Amino acid sequence: MKRLKVSNNVIRRLPRYLRKLDELTDNGISRISSFELGQQLGLTPSQIRQDFSCFGEFGQQGYGYNVPALRAQIATILGIDRGFSAVLIGVGNIGKALMDNFCFSEWGFRLDCAFDIKPELIGTQFNGVPIYSMDDLVKYLQEHPVDVAVLTVPKEVAVAVTNTLTENGVEAIWNFTNVELTEPNSPTLVENVHFSDSLLSLSYFVSERKDERAAKAARVEKQ
Amino acid sequence: MKRLKVSNNVIRRLPRYLRKLDELTDNGISRISSFELGQQLGLTPSQIRQDFSCFGEFGQQGYGYNVPALRAQIATILGIDRGFSAVLIGVGNIGKALMDNFCFSEWGFRLDCAFDIKPELIGTQFNGVPIYSMDDLVKYLQEHPVDVAVLTVPKEVAVAVTNTLTENGVEAIWNFTNVELTEPNSPTLVENVHFSDSLLSLSYFVSERKDERAAKAARVEKQ
Repeated sequence: MKRLKVSNNVIRRLPRYLRKLDELTDNGISRISSFELGQQLGLTPSQIRQDFSCFGEFGQQGYGYNVPALRAQIATILGIDRGFSAVLIGVGNIGKALMDNFCFSEWGFRLDCAFDIKPELIGTQFNGVPIYSMDDLVKYLQEHPVDVAVLTVPKEVAVAVTNTLTENGVEAIWNFTNVELTEPNSPTLVENVHFSDSLLSLSYFVSERKDERAAKAARVEKQ
Repeated sequence: MKRLKVSNNVIRRLPRYLRKLDELTDNGISRISSFELGQQLGLTPSQIRQDFSCFGEFGQQGYGYNVPALRAQIATILGIDRGFSAVLIGVGNIGKALMDNFCFSEWGFRLDCAFDIKPELIGTQFNGVPIYSMDDLVKYLQEHPVDVAVLTVPKEVAVAVTNTLTENGVEAIWNFTNVELTEPNSPTLVENVHFSDSLLSLSYFVSERKDERAAKAARVEKQ
């Protein structure tokens, strides 16, 4: 597939489009206008048309978008059909939560194994995923090309583990450690998961609502 | 504080600005231009100026932004200084991970307690947070106004618990259950945490890099 340089903001919106299209499919909707899609996502129709135009033409004037076709295109753009390999490092609470509840295969990832240092975990399986010793990580990486390492280790060891992953050719790190891993010259891609971003947006909306309520009460008071 | 209607996209960028400003502060940087800030965040300077103009004037022509002042303003806009109350529902893996690693107080939230159904957890504390029985949830909510409920229950009970929270006046739900809770007429705000969004963006970047590498190899082949 030929790729144009796409802005980061557009790339960040693609997974949201995908979720919305899945929801539409679940509701039996097979066609949608950019106006309606925009309404449902809080974006303008022209924004949506512009986003999709980065990747070619999906819609048809006066007809709208074909939901399954658009869904398939976005999935391809996101690489869902590539069968990327993943390993998880650190089977603590967050690691277990992901192995238990997050459906890697739904998003095209194959979670091959996990690594930990706790003797009681090593050699066992969690939700069908084998857990190996951290001592065997380097050997594993040398024998198996890994696309994405899910980093769920304690923050004290985040940098050391990252160095091991980078030195052994792991393509990308999905970082849950809250430690900033972005080395300017590192060949490893890093995607940080920041829970706080989502909580702070919620905090904004709660603040806004409370302010509105207070303003309304003040107006009533005045009358 | 007077509020203008601010677009969702701007609100979503505010937490990223905050993190960046914290990082700058940690590095001893107290002043930054919109150009430099844009470079570091992958946004245009005009985008940044436009975002901040929604809330008033922060910068000064030819001087740039005062980092601590801008940080303080954004924190206020996000409601970090409001002391919102939070409770966590469901002390499973993801619940424990949040109670263990996520610093609620850093973002202005007070995590007062958690609720679960497991007898061995009820009456204990986890990381200083008391765990109560789900049977006492309604009584608790009636006696304590709760701003945000962190929803980390199994997905089978997500909707039932949400109804209880809504009926008992919880302002907002921070939803980790992967269940779509947005009822059109519900007075409760819902913020969904979608791990997949972040993984799929990473998937895009890995795909892009592999394509570039393949294209380069093909060009070398041809020569």
